[in-house]
Amino acid sequence: MKETFRRAKTKVGEKSFNKIIKAGKQLFAKSGYHSTSINDIIAKANVAVGTYYIYFNSKLALYHYLLDEYQEKIRQAARIATKDLTSRKDIERAGLKAFIMYVIKEPLAYKLIWESLFVDQKLFIDYYSTFSKSYVQNLQKYGDVREDIDLETVSYILMGIANFVGLQILFKNKANEKDVDFVVEESMKLLDKGLFK
Amino acid sequence: MKETFRRAKTKVGEKSFNKIIKAGKQLFAKSGYHSTSINDIIAKANVAVGTYYIYFNSKLALYHYLLDEYQEKIRQAARIATKDLTSRKDIERAGLKAFIMYVIKEPLAYKLIWESLFVDQKLFIDYYSTFSKSYVQNLQKYGDVREDIDLETVSYILMGIANFVGLQILFKNKANEKDVDFVVEESMKLLDKGLFK
Repeated sequence: MKETFRRAKTKVGEKSFNKIIKAGKQLFAKSGYHSTSINDIIAKANVAVGTYYIYFNSKLALYHYLLDEYQEKIRQAARIATKDLTSRKDIERAGLKAFIMYVIKEPLAYKLIWESLFVDQKLFIDYYSTFSKSYVQNLQKYGDVREDIDLETVSYILMGIANFVGLQILFKNKANEKDVDFVVEESMKLLDKGLFK
Repeated sequence: MKETFRRAKTKVGEKSFNKIIKAGKQLFAKSGYHSTSINDIIAKANVAVGTYYIYFNSKLALYHYLLDEYQEKIRQAARIATKDLTSRKDIERAGLKAFIMYVIKEPLAYKLIWESLFVDQKLFIDYYSTFSKSYVQNLQKYGDVREDIDLETVSYILMGIANFVGLQILFKNKANEKDVDFVVEESMKLLDKGLFK
């Protein structure tokens, strides 16, 4: 079951909450979930022990919060990038670029999402299954997607491309927007003929 | 730097070596690398403490050994499945099926390879960069691959498809060869028009 969190109710509380979030991100990025303790997070955030437990019941609760936040931010980046587009092909291109630009800015997102496989395998499965289902619903809305391919498989193919072309970019030192545009256009060449009418 | 291992020189030694390998696989699968100690492995393998150090200098050395073994077994499965094939399209189809059939049999392979991101990020980068380079060399050998797409990007696209369609199958309970054939054929529909001439 998903561990919940409690939102801050005051400005001061919000400041503490954000300090905990920031410390959690930094420590999970550096040492990973298993090697980070609640005490490490409390020390790094520079808050009182009791303050942590106002917002989170456990280390797992903070991890769940961060996972949800990344998921929402990735969706939000895609929504903003694709909001005025009307063909699925244009949406895929803009969404792929937005995703890769986001992971350049927040490389911890990858680590955190994939680490769920080692924190709680169910989280990992839920994360991608949910993403797949909403992908399928979105693909169905447009007339330019081939109708003779199983859309569940297509959703995993598209997630695979985004994640691995994202890795290709992260593996380069100091990749910039031009590098991202290049791999996005190369990927779209394949999808243009392979996925779209 | 990569931690090395020492091969067993006798039949008895080989038996101990294999017991350590088996225990390492089971424990890394169950608890992950960070939560497994050398003592856990020694106890599970039922060997003397000194015996472990005949073959491996550290826990990391065993992890490296297992990572190399999976990499080699994945390549071997692909080699066997594709050995008499002459077009790259047929090779991709057979290779994709062989990869997914392998990960159904050995789901730890995924966990172990992706856990490298949390054991030593360089291992993870090396693993996929090496795979990408050999993929590019192989793609260049065949006349049926489109010439207007960057092959490095193609290599990450193909690794992404294999890994994520593999997840799609692993997420189903009790997926069988028929399920694998289905997702492979759906993936090939996209690649047929998108990647091949």
